[in-house]
Amino acid sequence: MLYYSKIRGNGVKMLTIDKVKDAANVLSEAIRKTDLIYASALPNHAKIYLKAENLQITGSFKVRGAYYKISQLSEEQKNKGIIACSAGNHAQGVALAAQRNNIKATIFIPSTAPISKIEATRKFGAEIKLVDGVYDDAYNEAVKFQKETGAEFIHPFDDEDVIAGQGTIALELLEQLPQIDAVIVPIGGGGLISGIAYVIKQLKPECKVYGVQAAGAGSMYHSIECRKRTELSRVSTFADGTAVKMPGVNTFDYCNKYVDKIELVNDDEVATAILELLERQKLIAEGAGALSVAGAIFNKFPIEGKNTVCVVSGGNIDVNILSRVINRGLLKTGRLSDITIELLDKPGQLKEVSQIIAEHGANVIRVRHNQGGENTDINDCFLKISMETKNLRHVCEIKRALQNSGYRVISEYSRVEPKE
Amino acid sequence: MLYYSKIRGNGVKMLTIDKVKDAANVLSEAIRKTDLIYASALPNHAKIYLKAENLQITGSFKVRGAYYKISQLSEEQKNKGIIACSAGNHAQGVALAAQRNNIKATIFIPSTAPISKIEATRKFGAEIKLVDGVYDDAYNEAVKFQKETGAEFIHPFDDEDVIAGQGTIALELLEQLPQIDAVIVPIGGGGLISGIAYVIKQLKPECKVYGVQAAGAGSMYHSIECRKRTELSRVSTFADGTAVKMPGVNTFDYCNKYVDKIELVNDDEVATAILELLERQKLIAEGAGALSVAGAIFNKFPIEGKNTVCVVSGGNIDVNILSRVINRGLLKTGRLSDITIELLDKPGQLKEVSQIIAEHGANVIRVRHNQGGENTDINDCFLKISMETKNLRHVCEIKRALQNSGYRVISEYSRVEPKE
Repeated sequence: MLYYSKIRGNGVKMLTIDKVKDAANVLSEAIRKTDLIYASALPNHAKIYLKAENLQITGSFKVRGAYYKISQLSEEQKNKGIIACSAGNHAQGVALAAQRNNIKATIFIPSTAPISKIEATRKFGAEIKLVDGVYDDAYNEAVKFQKETGAEFIHPFDDEDVIAGQGTIALELLEQLPQIDAVIVPIGGGGLISGIAYVIKQLKPECKVYGVQAAGAGSMYHSIECRKRTELSRVSTFADGTAVKMPGVNTFDYCNKYVDKIELVNDDEVATAILELLERQKLIAEGAGALSVAGAIFNKFPIEGKNTVCVVSGGNIDVNILSRVINRGLLKTGRLSDITIELLDKPGQLKEVSQIIAEHGANVIRVRHNQGGENTDINDCFLKISMETKNLRHVCEIKRALQNSGYRVISEYSRVEPKE
Repeated sequence: MLYYSKIRGNGVKMLTIDKVKDAANVLSEAIRKTDLIYASALPNHAKIYLKAENLQITGSFKVRGAYYKISQLSEEQKNKGIIACSAGNHAQGVALAAQRNNIKATIFIPSTAPISKIEATRKFGAEIKLVDGVYDDAYNEAVKFQKETGAEFIHPFDDEDVIAGQGTIALELLEQLPQIDAVIVPIGGGGLISGIAYVIKQLKPECKVYGVQAAGAGSMYHSIECRKRTELSRVSTFADGTAVKMPGVNTFDYCNKYVDKIELVNDDEVATAILELLERQKLIAEGAGALSVAGAIFNKFPIEGKNTVCVVSGGNIDVNILSRVINRGLLKTGRLSDITIELLDKPGQLKEVSQIIAEHGANVIRVRHNQGGENTDINDCFLKISMETKNLRHVCEIKRALQNSGYRVISEYSRVEPKE
């Protein structure tokens, strides 16, 4: 994990509401005041509102902190340029902020990063240094470059100005929903929740601030539990924007002081949240962005009946991954189903099976017909059918109909029996 | 196609800006004033803004017209209840509007409609009459029911109050973007564009109003071309919310009088627009909702340099269909690829092919290994590999590497050669 040398503050002393208001003022020229959307369709007993930072320019809140940080540099610092090391939302935020301020930005990206993210960063005019290897390799190159050039490192979270920039979200929330009771915020390094929690607890202390972390990257959760900053030996989560091994010095202090509770969610819960947002609210969230919604719909916090804001922090999900999330969700809810049927290898069976499926209104999208393996009779073969179905009950009806006609059905998804 | 008997006006005489303002006032208690989002990432030389009616409650603009129409009924009419015949956005809009006004709604839906849409309508408290058959069968039942009960039919588009409700979008646009130069609007029956065009041409006549229709359902386009309402013998489009065989009497007149130009887009263009909205703007649009964006990014109108609003009219797309749109888009842009390789049926070949693919950084997600068919040597077999790749160039590199090692590669997608 990265530690930058040039952190301004090293405690929670320097942030003020005036500073956050100044950030809001500076940002008003550059970023979107994103919409707050009442999410009546999400399955929960709270009144859930979504702060749609996935609709922010660059597709993530990160541009707020980066832009404000850059605006606060001296002319001398600006002339030397800025550096960041990231393959994700921070890189895009820094690149856009530098472009708008006419500053040279050099972004170090590990060569293993997805090409879409590299291109998105390059599009904002930053100079990209692709470094062979993983994050740490790119970071080491960035440090070397920093020493040579004296350019300013922009920290992704553990920086007072960055935290002030993220805190502007809370000012908007208090204006958009004065009757706010709770806000749920994703946590990676903790910059976003630090800014939001600080502002909320200064201006409306009775409003709860809850944090959500991915179970495979719960560095802040474990640090708060242990009452000291704790480094994880490894992080592994599908919410890749939050894969941080250790919280910042400042962000740990802010969370300790201002956050009411932090909970973990697993990757399946995050994937479900992404699909709920997509299907019911027509919004694309990335894994990190959907953490807050996962926390709400899986009842991690006491928010029943409360006006609760979930900060959807970003939407930059790789479309290949999104496609997998969708397919998995469709399979789990019985709207796609894969069934394998054992056939006797004689004429007419494929026709009969097709007919039974058609009569039940399912739509076949793929058929594979294979001879059996070593544990089957020599005359047997297997038919693997992928179908679009209505729900889990529908899948069961089709299976029963096939069984009633004498076919052995081997389900690929044994959990698809509906609750009776 | 449906013709309701109780159309109030039969010309363009009765709508006034005061009426639209009254609608805006009535709607302010019930609907969302949806966000206008600057879409800097969409590929076009215009300044494109998105009016996000996909984020409207019920996921579509339809609730505006339905709600205002219902608010204008007499107490006697309200007591008799209302009727609609639809399986889509109109059904949900009418059901929600009835629920909020404590009116009994009976919605006739053909039994072939997707279960998700039926459930979404039922959720708003409407009584659902599922009618065996297609739309016309449901409509006939609805007419019978109307005669028995005297309940009020709510027309999906050809009604002055409905048009006034949809026109409130234009009032919002003029407030959200006073410097608007053009607005692009999807057309099905024409209610949405009639309301918008009327308001724009009264209040800012120099602003252009463009309409987009699906090529497979171009009833308004052809009617305007022929200068009279023309019925299509059949409609077929993936933008199912616009599958209307004939424009309304009123909506035809409004389009004739106020719309600057109507153009057609094909299903491929609509699918591309859906994917662009999803990936670059983090928004889910249904086919009908993406028509306007398809019109913009495929340069159907002279909007270069202009402040152009695309009305994204709805987001209620079936997730199975969305999944297909995404997969097709990934294949076309080389981010998923299916290649078939002819192998000699001898040991070690699968390993070598796998190694070549791995060395090029592609991610294999499915492998099928089949013996050859009648036109191949008896020793040949085929390896069909699905991989996640970076782009079309990347796919070509992998193919060339395989060819250079002596394999014959049979592409499933012959168009994947990149432009040099």
